[in-house]
Amino acid sequence: MLNVGIIGATAYTSLELIKILLRHPEVKISYLGVRRTDRPRISDIFPILKNQFDLPCETIEQNKVPENIDLAFITLPPTISMQYAPLFIQKGIKVIDFSADYRFRDKSLYERWYKTQHTDSKGIETAVYGLPELFRGEIKKTNLVGNPGCYTTATILALAPLLMKGLISAEDIIVDAKSGVSGRGREPREDTHYCECNENIEAYSVGGHRHSPEIEHILSIRSNQKVSIQFVPHLVPMNRGILCTIYVKPKHGKDRAANSHSPFSDNEIHKLYEEFYGTEPFIRLKEGHEMPKTKDVIYTNFCDIATKVTENRIIILSAIDNLIKGASGQAVQNMNVMYGFDEKTGLL
Amino acid sequence: MLNVGIIGATAYTSLELIKILLRHPEVKISYLGVRRTDRPRISDIFPILKNQFDLPCETIEQNKVPENIDLAFITLPPTISMQYAPLFIQKGIKVIDFSADYRFRDKSLYERWYKTQHTDSKGIETAVYGLPELFRGEIKKTNLVGNPGCYTTATILALAPLLMKGLISAEDIIVDAKSGVSGRGREPREDTHYCECNENIEAYSVGGHRHSPEIEHILSIRSNQKVSIQFVPHLVPMNRGILCTIYVKPKHGKDRAANSHSPFSDNEIHKLYEEFYGTEPFIRLKEGHEMPKTKDVIYTNFCDIATKVTENRIIILSAIDNLIKGASGQAVQNMNVMYGFDEKTGLL
Amino acid sequence: MLNVGIIGATAYTSLELIKILLRHPEVKISYLGVRRTDRPRISDIFPILKNQFDLPCETIEQNKVPENIDLAFITLPPTISMQYAPLFIQKGIKVIDFSADYRFRDKSLYERWYKTQHTDSKGIETAVYGLPELFRGEIKKTNLVGNPGCYTTATILALAPLLMKGLISAEDIIVDAKSGVSGRGREPREDTHYCECNENIEAYSVGGHRHSPEIEHILSIRSNQKVSIQFVPHLVPMNRGILCTIYVKPKHGKDRAANSHSPFSDNEIHKLYEEFYGTEPFIRLKEGHEMPKTKDVIYTNFCDIATKVTENRIIILSAIDNLIKGASGQAVQNMNVMYGFDEKTGLL
Amino acid sequence: MLNVGIIGATAYTSLELIKILLRHPEVKISYLGVRRTDRPRISDIFPILKNQFDLPCETIEQNKVPENIDLAFITLPPTISMQYAPLFIQKGIKVIDFSADYRFRDKSLYERWYKTQHTDSKGIETAVYGLPELFRGEIKKTNLVGNPGCYTTATILALAPLLMKGLISAEDIIVDAKSGVSGRGREPREDTHYCECNENIEAYSVGGHRHSPEIEHILSIRSNQKVSIQFVPHLVPMNRGILCTIYVKPKHGKDRAANSHSPFSDNEIHKLYEEFYGTEPFIRLKEGHEMPKTKDVIYTNFCDIATKVTENRIIILSAIDNLIKGASGQAVQNMNVMYGFDEKTGLL
Repeated sequence: MLNVGIIGATAYTSLELIKILLRHPEVKISYLGVRRTDRPRISDIFPILKNQFDLPCETIEQNKVPENIDLAFITLPPTISMQYAPLFIQKGIKVIDFSADYRFRDKSLYERWYKTQHTDSKGIETAVYGLPELFRGEIKKTNLVGNPGCYTTATILALAPLLMKGLISAEDIIVDAKSGVSGRGREPREDTHYCECNENIEAYSVGGHRHSPEIEHILSIRSNQKVSIQFVPHLVPMNRGILCTIYVKPKHGKDRAANSHSPFSDNEIHKLYEEFYGTEPFIRLKEGHEMPKTKDVIYTNFCDIATKVTENRIIILSAIDNLIKGASGQAVQNMNVMYGFDEKTGLL
Repeated sequence: MLNVGIIGATAYTSLELIKILLRHPEVKISYLGVRRTDRPRISDIFPILKNQFDLPCETIEQNKVPENIDLAFITLPPTISMQYAPLFIQKGIKVIDFSADYRFRDKSLYERWYKTQHTDSKGIETAVYGLPELFRGEIKKTNLVGNPGCYTTATILALAPLLMKGLISAEDIIVDAKSGVSGRGREPREDTHYCECNENIEAYSVGGHRHSPEIEHILSIRSNQKVSIQFVPHLVPMNRGILCTIYVKPKHGKDRAANSHSPFSDNEIHKLYEEFYGTEPFIRLKEGHEMPKTKDVIYTNFCDIATKVTENRIIILSAIDNLIKGASGQAVQNMNVMYGFDEKTGLL
Repeated sequence: MLNVGIIGATAYTSLELIKILLRHPEVKISYLGVRRTDRPRISDIFPILKNQFDLPCETIEQNKVPENIDLAFITLPPTISMQYAPLFIQKGIKVIDFSADYRFRDKSLYERWYKTQHTDSKGIETAVYGLPELFRGEIKKTNLVGNPGCYTTATILALAPLLMKGLISAEDIIVDAKSGVSGRGREPREDTHYCECNENIEAYSVGGHRHSPEIEHILSIRSNQKVSIQFVPHLVPMNRGILCTIYVKPKHGKDRAANSHSPFSDNEIHKLYEEFYGTEPFIRLKEGHEMPKTKDVIYTNFCDIATKVTENRIIILSAIDNLIKGASGQAVQNMNVMYGFDEKTGLL
Repeated sequence: MLNVGIIGATAYTSLELIKILLRHPEVKISYLGVRRTDRPRISDIFPILKNQFDLPCETIEQNKVPENIDLAFITLPPTISMQYAPLFIQKGIKVIDFSADYRFRDKSLYERWYKTQHTDSKGIETAVYGLPELFRGEIKKTNLVGNPGCYTTATILALAPLLMKGLISAEDIIVDAKSGVSGRGREPREDTHYCECNENIEAYSVGGHRHSPEIEHILSIRSNQKVSIQFVPHLVPMNRGILCTIYVKPKHGKDRAANSHSPFSDNEIHKLYEEFYGTEPFIRLKEGHEMPKTKDVIYTNFCDIATKVTENRIIILSAIDNLIKGASGQAVQNMNVMYGFDEKTGLL
């Protein structure tokens, strides 16, 4: 039985993580840490857990790392996580970190976007990007995982096959992303007020969202070319779920007619994705005219993907639950890979 | 042309008030006062007003009452309003106040529920309760109106005919009320966070909501008996609208058989309401099996009412828009009465 | 391993049933029957099941009962179910029926409300009402369960302690119930159209909903007195969840002062519920001022209950997921009882 | 006083049209025609109209054109409208048609997309496209207006300034559009069922929506070049509102450095839009980082537009109410232009 702790237990992602781990036969939640709270037990913070699970929330301190756990899930905000992760690593406790602090191999890129010095150089160098579909081999061997962002997961999984096969322009990619409100966190603010979100859709961070360097960074590494995307996120009146609609330009192959039409057929692209993702347990490719719907992926760890070839473009659509495949489900999938459990355990 | 000011311009009710007044041919909005804001113009606070209306928001101060207005709508919170209302009255400016500060004739009742001393004794004595359907004559002659609460309006209009005719037990009344989230105000708090309200219904203040003494007070005055209600409000995932479902017990008349069945027929009760409300412009009685729906009253000043006689009870349902008939529309209706305009002006 | 079939596989409740059974280690879904469909596989009807579970949907016929199952969940509409249930029973296959067809011990009561003759007299006589908290002993021994309705479950669980202890007036009970839209079924109709339900709350079937005789019937049986309720259901803009707000009148005990105040304290009532429900795994009693919220019970088999004593009344609030504790979760709980599995299996 | 009729009175757009016309001082609604209905009066179809407006709905017949109206708003579906519009025109009654039947100057284009022969050649030749911002002069003089579609209005208004000035590639335009559910009409279908739309976002008609030829056709005419767009619509869980996020490629001017960066600054593009739309009463350009939100335009005739220059692209965002500026408000704006009323009458 694996003993795990959750550091930052009051986040929406922490609740989802607890619910998944309660269904996992190989894991016991042994520690809950919070930075501050006026509610002493997790069932006070999340009454939905009553009669299912309870544990006191302990105030985390830098000099008081819990001893009784094998693995720590850190759900603290970026720039805070890196203050705690090395403390666990030093004690031989593995870490799966939910923030952006361990998602970049390039420290300077992190520092530019998060506007602060990265204080854990060793961590950022050794951390592995926790997207099992692309980094499974490295995740198996690491003790520090940078768990991907939600928009990032949906975008990278949608683009990887075409970029890694070199079939599309790597610098002419448009990602129009739509997210439910839980993506904004639990903090009450004007922009999370019910009456401001309900009956409304709007774009935000147009021209510079923090997720775009993460997407470009990982896709560049994986496809050995400079990838550059135009990323615009939108807030949709629903609790959870992300849909990405992605527009890319096919390259014209040498042995294909250089006319104005797409060099690929719908069928060729669909086959490519089928081969690329083969038996991946959490990727589902839509057939025919079926399109991904967030309602089919919420409360699941699936990423649903569809492709459509048009005259000048290939359109890729992908849908995930931002809290599951975009956070806590993926973290458990990473844990399963790290410890050699069946990758689907706790997730179906 | 009547010059009006709005004191407390950042509330949801103020936006609705502005939108209504812009359609009112006899009125000009000449002054907007706020307690504090970092956004200097009303169109910055409410971008929906752009190209329609704009005015700077001036910081209100007790010693700086605007001179250029005839009437002030005060949309400040209870216990704050009474600090400003007398300043306007002293200068000969009429006041329609949205808070509870001028809704009680009995100062001690106010002080018990709002846990503070009432500092404007003269005001509370002379103020008129601004429900035109029941107090039209007095509203015509007053210079200080206490504009009713939203739950209160829906409940009093539903109950007045039966109570004033003495046909039901005055102390066995259950009011199960349901409100959209705008009733909670614009303040971002945990209980107004989108993800906490969406896909959820819950009761609150069970056993003691501030609106119940207001309802009992006014209905007691109007029906000359002690009225006592059991009031439970609920929060519904929608922006606006209130539905009250009210359960009352019919009295058995002398000349009616004292069996276990209701002494009244559906038809008799319906007729009673028709006669009581006669040509009231904003009361609509539903016919047959039709029931009030909040979607039919939102963005309007109507109160839709249905009645249904069952074996032991009479059930009354009423629906209003909490921001219009429950606040700003009613305030304009009161203004129309006070100044002798057609009561529907600006409101259809 | 228990082989089960689902007869009527296209209902919302069937999808929930499948999702729960997939997590149940003792059960295999071996048969899916539908009355008619143009989509041959269950994953075409519910794309959310892709990569998790699939099976063809077979057209059910009266003379072609599947042979390979031990237990049939029948999710057909009332009056249709009773045409199929006896066919399974005759072949030695146990039945858990979701319709009203086996919920009444009194055939004539059923016939009055469902306006048709009941064609399975033997079934209705031997069937057990599938509410484990009240009928666990009988459920253990039966081969035919009438699974309770959703409103019914929430109401009976809220009222049983007070009625069975004889502490309240059995004929002065008001149940104000609020339900999400999935309670209306999957049929597209004007009253399930998104724009008609969204941003709206309304009452329906005021004065005569089919669930009230079921509630009265079961509570009368269990408390040995004539129970009569005033039941008004409302439609709330959310997918799932039911909240019941129930108003009852305490009886004045002999040894209690006959004053106008309630003869009970909040604490006494809370204790009574604690004792009554003891270690029930799916009943959660709220403490202090906490009130049940549908968001805390959706996607779970829990029923959350709170009680509040006021001057003249006791108010009881209960919340469930209409599709889980109000249908499919309860059916699995019944199956667990019938087969001696741990009652929580598949349900936490 | 202008007498108008509405032909097809049961549509969501007809309700909005009636509400606007009731506020219009120069107009009287004198006739309501329906193809079929079981509800004889408009207030039965739309109870929200009670106490405001009522009129019987007459069954329209080809040989029974009403005589008492000056102008007919036709809100019938495409391919049906063209059966009625010429009957009115022949009698000297002007027509504003809401369907696609009079939006194309090129009959063959219409016939290709609507898969039917156009039976009113004369009408389609003389009709004027009813977008006042681009065709005001022609609208003034016509007796037959083809009122634009909702997606079309939002897209054309966003793109016209850049295309008409020749500053962007006309064949590399991506329009990612998001609409509320009322855009799907009042027909109850699986895809308008509350539980299918709520808590969900999805794309539809990917690779071929009927609105894209309309957009391309009108923009090609107005900018004298072949315009080609990639258009993907999405369904968002809200009643009304459209947001378009549009990605275009700036052309490099001669006298500008041919580096990889955009040849324009945010400020230049913003100025261009300001000059282009000048004093247009219903176009509002967002300043700075403000982005259009559907909640700021619903229930209004405004189109809110923002522009943002990024490294390789210009992003344009536009928001309208699909039922107002995307249908009924625009129809009234057209009427105001045709009859020389102030263009804002009834619309603020």
